[in-house]
Amino acid sequence: MGEGHPVHSEGRVAVISIGIVGATGYTGVELLRLLANHPEAEVRAITSRSAEGTAVADLYPNLRGRYDLRFVAPDVEPLSDCDVVFFATPHNVAMGMVPELLARGVRIIDLSADFRLRDAELWQRWYGEPHACPELLTETVYGLPELNRAAMAEARLIACAGCYPTAVQLGFMPLLAHGLVDADRLIASAASGASGAGRQARVDNLLSETAGSFKAYGASGHRHLPEIRQILGEVAGGPVSLTFVPHLLPIVRGIHATLYSELVDADQELATLQQYFVDYYRDEPFVDVLPPGSHPQTRSVTGSNLCRIALHRPADSGVLVVLAVIDNLTKGASGQAVQCMNIALGLPETMGLEPLALMP
Amino acid sequence: MGEGHPVHSEGRVAVISIGIVGATGYTGVELLRLLANHPEAEVRAITSRSAEGTAVADLYPNLRGRYDLRFVAPDVEPLSDCDVVFFATPHNVAMGMVPELLARGVRIIDLSADFRLRDAELWQRWYGEPHACPELLTETVYGLPELNRAAMAEARLIACAGCYPTAVQLGFMPLLAHGLVDADRLIASAASGASGAGRQARVDNLLSETAGSFKAYGASGHRHLPEIRQILGEVAGGPVSLTFVPHLLPIVRGIHATLYSELVDADQELATLQQYFVDYYRDEPFVDVLPPGSHPQTRSVTGSNLCRIALHRPADSGVLVVLAVIDNLTKGASGQAVQCMNIALGLPETMGLEPLALMP
Amino acid sequence: MGEGHPVHSEGRVAVISIGIVGATGYTGVELLRLLANHPEAEVRAITSRSAEGTAVADLYPNLRGRYDLRFVAPDVEPLSDCDVVFFATPHNVAMGMVPELLARGVRIIDLSADFRLRDAELWQRWYGEPHACPELLTETVYGLPELNRAAMAEARLIACAGCYPTAVQLGFMPLLAHGLVDADRLIASAASGASGAGRQARVDNLLSETAGSFKAYGASGHRHLPEIRQILGEVAGGPVSLTFVPHLLPIVRGIHATLYSELVDADQELATLQQYFVDYYRDEPFVDVLPPGSHPQTRSVTGSNLCRIALHRPADSGVLVVLAVIDNLTKGASGQAVQCMNIALGLPETMGLEPLALMP
Amino acid sequence: MGEGHPVHSEGRVAVISIGIVGATGYTGVELLRLLANHPEAEVRAITSRSAEGTAVADLYPNLRGRYDLRFVAPDVEPLSDCDVVFFATPHNVAMGMVPELLARGVRIIDLSADFRLRDAELWQRWYGEPHACPELLTETVYGLPELNRAAMAEARLIACAGCYPTAVQLGFMPLLAHGLVDADRLIASAASGASGAGRQARVDNLLSETAGSFKAYGASGHRHLPEIRQILGEVAGGPVSLTFVPHLLPIVRGIHATLYSELVDADQELATLQQYFVDYYRDEPFVDVLPPGSHPQTRSVTGSNLCRIALHRPADSGVLVVLAVIDNLTKGASGQAVQCMNIALGLPETMGLEPLALMP
Repeated sequence: MGEGHPVHSEGRVAVISIGIVGATGYTGVELLRLLANHPEAEVRAITSRSAEGTAVADLYPNLRGRYDLRFVAPDVEPLSDCDVVFFATPHNVAMGMVPELLARGVRIIDLSADFRLRDAELWQRWYGEPHACPELLTETVYGLPELNRAAMAEARLIACAGCYPTAVQLGFMPLLAHGLVDADRLIASAASGASGAGRQARVDNLLSETAGSFKAYGASGHRHLPEIRQILGEVAGGPVSLTFVPHLLPIVRGIHATLYSELVDADQELATLQQYFVDYYRDEPFVDVLPPGSHPQTRSVTGSNLCRIALHRPADSGVLVVLAVIDNLTKGASGQAVQCMNIALGLPETMGLEPLALMP
Repeated sequence: MGEGHPVHSEGRVAVISIGIVGATGYTGVELLRLLANHPEAEVRAITSRSAEGTAVADLYPNLRGRYDLRFVAPDVEPLSDCDVVFFATPHNVAMGMVPELLARGVRIIDLSADFRLRDAELWQRWYGEPHACPELLTETVYGLPELNRAAMAEARLIACAGCYPTAVQLGFMPLLAHGLVDADRLIASAASGASGAGRQARVDNLLSETAGSFKAYGASGHRHLPEIRQILGEVAGGPVSLTFVPHLLPIVRGIHATLYSELVDADQELATLQQYFVDYYRDEPFVDVLPPGSHPQTRSVTGSNLCRIALHRPADSGVLVVLAVIDNLTKGASGQAVQCMNIALGLPETMGLEPLALMP
Repeated sequence: MGEGHPVHSEGRVAVISIGIVGATGYTGVELLRLLANHPEAEVRAITSRSAEGTAVADLYPNLRGRYDLRFVAPDVEPLSDCDVVFFATPHNVAMGMVPELLARGVRIIDLSADFRLRDAELWQRWYGEPHACPELLTETVYGLPELNRAAMAEARLIACAGCYPTAVQLGFMPLLAHGLVDADRLIASAASGASGAGRQARVDNLLSETAGSFKAYGASGHRHLPEIRQILGEVAGGPVSLTFVPHLLPIVRGIHATLYSELVDADQELATLQQYFVDYYRDEPFVDVLPPGSHPQTRSVTGSNLCRIALHRPADSGVLVVLAVIDNLTKGASGQAVQCMNIALGLPETMGLEPLALMP
Repeated sequence: MGEGHPVHSEGRVAVISIGIVGATGYTGVELLRLLANHPEAEVRAITSRSAEGTAVADLYPNLRGRYDLRFVAPDVEPLSDCDVVFFATPHNVAMGMVPELLARGVRIIDLSADFRLRDAELWQRWYGEPHACPELLTETVYGLPELNRAAMAEARLIACAGCYPTAVQLGFMPLLAHGLVDADRLIASAASGASGAGRQARVDNLLSETAGSFKAYGASGHRHLPEIRQILGEVAGGPVSLTFVPHLLPIVRGIHATLYSELVDADQELATLQQYFVDYYRDEPFVDVLPPGSHPQTRSVTGSNLCRIALHRPADSGVLVVLAVIDNLTKGASGQAVQCMNIALGLPETMGLEPLALMP
């Protein structure tokens, strides 16, 4: 956070000045949507190389009347005056700018993949190039409040959890933390709305290519896999083996994870397992453990920051099925980023994240 | 409004107690969504004959954690303690209960069609049965703030404008008020998302019957037609002739109206016409006149209370094309109802209606 | 088949007379669509209690100009003159009529669940009532040509494989037949379009409840599970343990199965496994094994009778992932039924099933 | 058609060799789908600059097993051996190649806009560049069989009607041919699925930008307008004035046109008007006039070559409403092209166009 940053305190108007790098993308506009109703935040700078000079409301008409901002070039200068800068960029952008911004006292919340892995070599293996500032990886706080809220309060650099990882990890964490399932046989069959692929002009993402259809992708290996393995390994206290298959839904928003694991005690009852989840997430404002046997649908969280979870125990089997849903752009990205910011700045954690999901 | 109603005044916590009749339907849950973040409102009673005893959050999981309410039978008793009662019912329900609630001092905001037409015989012709309390029709204030905000402040009974009528009327009103177009040749080609048909178990509304498809319905005559004619006639100062064809979109929310009219002065330029609209809606918080040549899409207002309007002048023609979009459940129903309530109670008109539309 | 049935032989016009019970449903209309272009079939009787007297083309306008038929009451009489009768009904209808039709020499192809399980007690456990004619269960031929084509030629009664079972079984069969995977740890995560739920007026299936959303259902146990276990057990030569979680896609047609299994030999290479599949399905006209690493999408089979399959071997894991897609109404129901009929009558197996899937 | 072209005659296998320019696009693959089951056609060459060397089945998996073809560069050579060459290209491609192909005796069926307008200056005004071979415009036969079937039999060059024009013209033609409506006040409010925009990588056409939404586009002027005016003017025997507003549906296939016109005789009854349509299209295999009061939905023609039409007479009004639906890729493009080819070659007009629409 910049020098002279206005610390929030009861009874006075403190304003946190915000910069967003890459605000033309879907996580960028979602940040702008959420921050528009955040009483302590004011977005001062939004950057985009391709849209420089364009009014953000021309690109996203839902922002008309609420933002007068125009995109500026993604230079350090306009951003270094901000208290907090969000990176809503593809990978390989944040790591080029973060060191200088940190040096200028700016707090960073990175929604991209640049700082999620602690191991720079692993990063290089999955992203195909060397990491630009491996020395920052150990300092980075992984941005999943349900995992490490305490560490966020002091963090200068938060790497928000990925969208799939958020859903998969929240679903597996109570089980692995308590050693209830076989950590060598985890399966995550997950599906995401098309907004997860971003706002890129690619034939594969056309409505005509995807509407009314469903398919898996990256079934042989997806970049979210090492992130999930890293975090679940930390929770389990040792390496885990996970098969992760993502699928593309013909919808805009939403992630649904169907998680399969083998119970260490095949006779363990659903009620007991349910209680582990209820206890684990008892104080979490954004995790909703549904009654056992529920089937959460993705739209029950559309536009909200919630993760809803339900447990199932198929008969005649030692398998536990966990269902978890989030909105990939909210709890899976920008909502989580605002939640992290709130924690980091000592604000009420739910500030700006109150709106309910749209139903129908 | 009930005796002892807490008048809102700066600086103190006034709470308006709310009842909702028919809260199992889509306009009902939308009211609950909006009122959950309304700082002055508290929903105290929700009624449903079919769902009596059910927790509302079991029916609509997006409300989990925000409402503890259970549906009660639709009797006058629990409702008569409320300051305001909303009817989110099919037609023919409100008119059976409204007289008694009014007698008990409750303010009524009716989202159904029962009180929209001033002419009881016309009502009977379109709805196939006599009106139960025709004496109330003259007192009723038609709930379209952009038309008659002043009258709302004193109204006991507000009949919210229908969803299609809201979009069609907002698009035609400036033209008719200024006599710019031929009132005998109005055409409204409009389309609605499937939520407009309500939450009824009908084969026609199944996803398998409607997804990936589009069709007109009611092309020979639709119940919203007399409502639109009545209001546009008042604005024009004489009878209008309107052809109205609704269409069913394979989406959940949204109304798009494409309005065709013939200019009285076929040489009138687009810029002049645009200025009429800008001036007409200058102080309206929920009407957004887009730059000429824009094409508003329905999702730019999804979940918000806005109506966005754009004008086009096709070349070599004396026809003006007006495009208007709303969310049928928000500005077309429950958002408008909250807006009407705010006006009626002297609250800031936008209270509880701040959230932006989701994009993407 | 009825006495005097016209056996098909080269060079003469043989016509098979067809009856369909329950033709108002989605598998019924799909049968009508496919049979309209089947050169040897003529539909003579369609039954429906609810739609008696209605012209089928009024219910399904895609059939206009091709069928003059009207629905008749579901009595034995009009059906007993047919060579083949298809049951496109919910469970518990066919078993009430089949014995008498068989007695009259009619060949039966049942698309419902009535005759799929060989064990009448198991049937009763899952369907909640006693089976009406358990004595027929041993005679019934299970209608999955890729499994038991030979047996079909002599069958009077064919019980077509269910939609999910078709996709799941075709994906697992080569692995279990060759003992390549652990039969105690099979996981099938599958998803279906909404047409799988049939043409019933239920709130859960409304477009407004399902569009733009995704959810699991029946995660604790689904009626297709015992069918899949039975067949895979036969293929494996012993009991299998399978976890099966179905999901509801916001699309009309299509099933996608993502199948996880543990390789007995964790070092087995993808190319070897691929070859097993290629060999297993070498002569199958309706199974298309894609190149390894492919991701079949459901729409690549929309309206066609094909099952497309692809294999993946995630790195650092002994898990094999098999992806399989079908159209639930075609290969998952009515197309398979026609394929079974062709085999049973000695017609070319692909007759009437030539049309390609629509893309886009 | 090339010299020595095998004229079709009863009882022998005549094969028409086909070339397709631009077969990577949606009208190209639709041609391939339809021609796969056309008993007289054999596709010999498909061209694409961008996909040269790619197997067509890799691009469109629905074609797997039916086509072994690979794309070749779009040169004249491989095409000049064909009897018929289809151009399934954006505008400005066909006019560069057609003269040479004609000179080599190849029959051309152009699905693009290059030869639809008879007036080269008008073409230049709407397409922003001079026409490359204006001398061919008078010879070109406009490819709408319902308008000028006779002329097609001798045509070397057929310019298939555009997708919107097909639906709009078929809906207005009987009215204008008989002088039943005011030709100065035609309004066409039409909507198309996203496949009409082609297979181009544009942000506007992403699923995330269009799904669950609806909007108009080109409301101030669209390139199909001059085509419609030209044809309707010919039918009316004099200039017509038409307002045409297209809209984008969040579906893949389908066009719905809602046509408004003023009756010359405001008292004319619906039954009389209906009879005009029935008579006008009595012998047309691909125009289906529905009973009065029907509301055709787009999916009733998905994948088929039909246009379904219905008439409505709103009460208290002199306006006639005509509803017309087609599949934009079939009757609106490739199906119509095959129909034109069949006519031009003297084949049965419906050959290869038999499949019914998918419902559901």
